[in-house]
Amino acid sequence: MSGLADIADIGTDPRRGGYSRHVFDDAERQLREWFVEQAQRRGLDVHTDANANMWAWWGEPGDDAVVTGSHLDSVPGGGAFDGPLGVTSALQAVDVLRARGFQPRRPFAVVVFAEEEGGRFGVPCLGSKLLTGQIDPDRARNLRDAGGLTFAEAMADFGADPARAGRDDAALRRIGQFVELHVEQGKGLIELGRPVGVADSILGHGRWRFRFHGQGNHAGATRIDDRRDPMLPAAELVLAARRAAEAADDARATVGRIVPTPGGTNVIASAVDVHLDARAPERSRELVADLSARAAEFAAHEGCEVEVLEESFGETVHFDPTMRDRLRDLLHGAPALPSGAGHDAGILAAERPTGMLFVRNPTGISHAPEEHAEQADCEEGSLALADVLQELAR
Amino acid sequence: MSGLADIADIGTDPRRGGYSRHVFDDAERQLREWFVEQAQRRGLDVHTDANANMWAWWGEPGDDAVVTGSHLDSVPGGGAFDGPLGVTSALQAVDVLRARGFQPRRPFAVVVFAEEEGGRFGVPCLGSKLLTGQIDPDRARNLRDAGGLTFAEAMADFGADPARAGRDDAALRRIGQFVELHVEQGKGLIELGRPVGVADSILGHGRWRFRFHGQGNHAGATRIDDRRDPMLPAAELVLAARRAAEAADDARATVGRIVPTPGGTNVIASAVDVHLDARAPERSRELVADLSARAAEFAAHEGCEVEVLEESFGETVHFDPTMRDRLRDLLHGAPALPSGAGHDAGILAAERPTGMLFVRNPTGISHAPEEHAEQADCEEGSLALADVLQELAR
Repeated sequence: MSGLADIADIGTDPRRGGYSRHVFDDAERQLREWFVEQAQRRGLDVHTDANANMWAWWGEPGDDAVVTGSHLDSVPGGGAFDGPLGVTSALQAVDVLRARGFQPRRPFAVVVFAEEEGGRFGVPCLGSKLLTGQIDPDRARNLRDAGGLTFAEAMADFGADPARAGRDDAALRRIGQFVELHVEQGKGLIELGRPVGVADSILGHGRWRFRFHGQGNHAGATRIDDRRDPMLPAAELVLAARRAAEAADDARATVGRIVPTPGGTNVIASAVDVHLDARAPERSRELVADLSARAAEFAAHEGCEVEVLEESFGETVHFDPTMRDRLRDLLHGAPALPSGAGHDAGILAAERPTGMLFVRNPTGISHAPEEHAEQADCEEGSLALADVLQELAR
Repeated sequence: MSGLADIADIGTDPRRGGYSRHVFDDAERQLREWFVEQAQRRGLDVHTDANANMWAWWGEPGDDAVVTGSHLDSVPGGGAFDGPLGVTSALQAVDVLRARGFQPRRPFAVVVFAEEEGGRFGVPCLGSKLLTGQIDPDRARNLRDAGGLTFAEAMADFGADPARAGRDDAALRRIGQFVELHVEQGKGLIELGRPVGVADSILGHGRWRFRFHGQGNHAGATRIDDRRDPMLPAAELVLAARRAAEAADDARATVGRIVPTPGGTNVIASAVDVHLDARAPERSRELVADLSARAAEFAAHEGCEVEVLEESFGETVHFDPTMRDRLRDLLHGAPALPSGAGHDAGILAAERPTGMLFVRNPTGISHAPEEHAEQADCEEGSLALADVLQELAR
């Protein structure tokens, strides 16, 4: 019943472990083909919208639909569940509803959003942000991947028209309510001893790139006093970010990606990019502003300079309380949980009544190969999703 | 007369600036073809030895030859002069000697060494270390590039037999004396106001890889207290390495390359590789042993672990004083300078009388696009090399 077994071989990453599936790469295209085939097998009509999100319609497409789904892309070296579980559970919920003889009275769709992780172009939830106009389409078109290709070029290569990207009111009108199922990315359900929960909020979240500039030079021939090595302030920033997160209430600050240029062992870097992921219930921009001031001091101390670029930012999202409580009631008092992770549902929540279901993750680990969900909990999750969708679509 | 202009378009790196030319890649193969063509144009016979070093013979190959040359590979994003200047100057010295009507009485060769920078497989001076047996050929065959390809596989793809790699006594016997010309990688000749100098010593030099292991996880969903983030001890090590170099006499310690796995912005790394380049007149291994102990403390503080791997190590090289003084006399009292950078000449110095000439670098910068040498100084350098070779080969 899982469906995840079908795609277990797609996009495995032998170097990092786990999966690397990024928007429009070979693995993600294979996953899109698999999704189309699964939808067609169920008699659902698939179309891809102007922002490369895919919609599979049960019956006629129409406004005010009940919509469920998630994403198929991963972080580099990610787990099997983050994203795909919401898609396979949606397909399984359709099967359950059919087996029950249920016919939705409202339009009904399963959606797959593009580039939820921002693993290729750096902005998370890119497909849903374009759909809702939460990112300027010109900015999106000019985002570049690590190889220098723009999002517009990658879209065109995929066969989509980058000129059409951007807010899509017709597509948004079709969403009556949106419910996303997702593996939990934390320990809430373990601690509560429950297989399924409901989302209460998503922690405010942004990404910033700190680019330190120094002077590239020879690692052996350059005396210590003659150096302007941007790796030094970059390292200071890594430590300062941790201290800032510790000092703030329920905040997180992470550097998981640091890219020196040119990146040779026997070369003092000319520049270092530090990618900061920072999250907090509130004032995360202030936390980053403080860090930016510190970064400038660290840079100046080494004769370097720093530029700070905000790549994405979103305030804390509180899901619609009516929707949240309705889901809890339908699921016999399932617990409501905050999410430290971002989701497309958090983007859509600004536009439409939106809810989320979480499935217990026995490791508590996510964005890593150890991410897991037990088969029994996954089945419980897809049945819960079916119950919710049946009630909403009746 | 420069010769460097011929190869100015080969291996340019638009992202990093400068040149990225690594052993057996497309750029380095084009440079090898260029070298063969230049040698043939001068009537020199080229053969490639068992370790992928190329030898161009003026007249019959034979033992006890006068040999000059350098390398054609670069660091990532390196300058135009480091390596190629020694090759073009050698070819120009042949032209000068021919124009003077000089015919060497001893065998005479121009050599190009493979993978001097270690830019692809991590071990600098790999071609000369294999030739002299200073690296175990099994270890060399199993070195891997960033894409996971082994040196043996890359050799085979190049058309060489990796089983033959290793110490080559017949090739070594052919070297009577070796003289390498190189752009200076420092400010010695600027400060002295001289275009050309002679090498006195090469600073002891090693490369170590510190691999910190932690727990990969979600950057938003993982509470700070629950983290085992290897980026923290990695950053501490960067700072500790600088402090250690400052505290030691004439030491250098550099982190120019740091590679988190998986390397996603919204992912706590599961592992971070810190590549340390450390150099000192003596006791650099002790400096690194101290840093290793500190690294273990930094790791333990974050619930992480660290492994330390010595990738290469060489003691300080003092060039043969007789050879050094002979070169200085031939060059009318050219100054003798220490080198903070490593060279194939430093490897051969353990086997044969070896010397080096340096050409002034007006920026003092090396391993970076700003590396430079004035045309007039380059001509002075190749004439000085011609004078030296004429004296040695007479």
